[in-house]
Amino acid sequence: MTRMNIKKPFLKNYSSLPQVLTNKPLAALGDAYVNFVYSLAPLYKNRETMRKESERNSAGRGGEKSRVEEVDASRINKHILRDAAEALLVYAWLNDFITLEESVEALEKNDNLEKGLMHLLLTAKEKIKL
Amino acid sequence: MTRMNIKKPFLKNYSSLPQVLTNKPLAALGDAYVNFVYSLAPLYKNRETMRKESERNSAGRGGEKSRVEEVDASRINKHILRDAAEALLVYAWLNDFITLEESVEALEKNDNLEKGLMHLLLTAKEKIKL
Repeated sequence: MTRMNIKKPFLKNYSSLPQVLTNKPLAALGDAYVNFVYSLAPLYKNRETMRKESERNSAGRGGEKSRVEEVDASRINKHILRDAAEALLVYAWLNDFITLEESVEALEKNDNLEKGLMHLLLTAKEKIKL
Repeated sequence: MTRMNIKKPFLKNYSSLPQVLTNKPLAALGDAYVNFVYSLAPLYKNRETMRKESERNSAGRGGEKSRVEEVDASRINKHILRDAAEALLVYAWLNDFITLEESVEALEKNDNLEKGLMHLLLTAKEKIKL
């Protein structure tokens, strides 16, 4: 029995990085990919908890309560950035630039959620040929 | 550079099936695994949407509104069953009884969320040696 290529339906010709970073189906798959990678990294027991902690910390920064609009704008920007990061990471995995193992490894190099994700992104960026 | 074995931290000696099915860390990893598998199956664009649809359908079944306690009991049972199914599936993957590709394939054999998951579970169950 020949195995199907599960990556194939997602492999499209992207001619530029912005096309990858703003692709909604890629971002959706990337979200599930990154969530699975975090679950496999024993350092990060619960990604959602850590994400909430990190959001709480940055919201409380400065000692003053931010205005509602500022918080909203910051949330939207974070959301767009997270989508872009997740799309990029799964694009790297789909095109065999990075393996699941390498993704978990890169994440484990840091004990902090954001630094870990940054390390993972840099690892993927170095390997992507676009 | 030697690759780390990302599955190793999760590999424990389970002597019986109930030990696997009720293991919370396995269920947590299984949730992320199954979510990723669904995301890779183009038939299922949005697992959450489908899950909600399926819950709405079963809640509405019978034409009468169920009593709150009944709905709650049903939800708790569903939750326990889902945790058990997800723990079993990721246990099969961790022990190399089933690959990510085979999981996506098994799911794609059905166009219905619940049937797909059942097919995936049966495939895993056939391959598991415990």
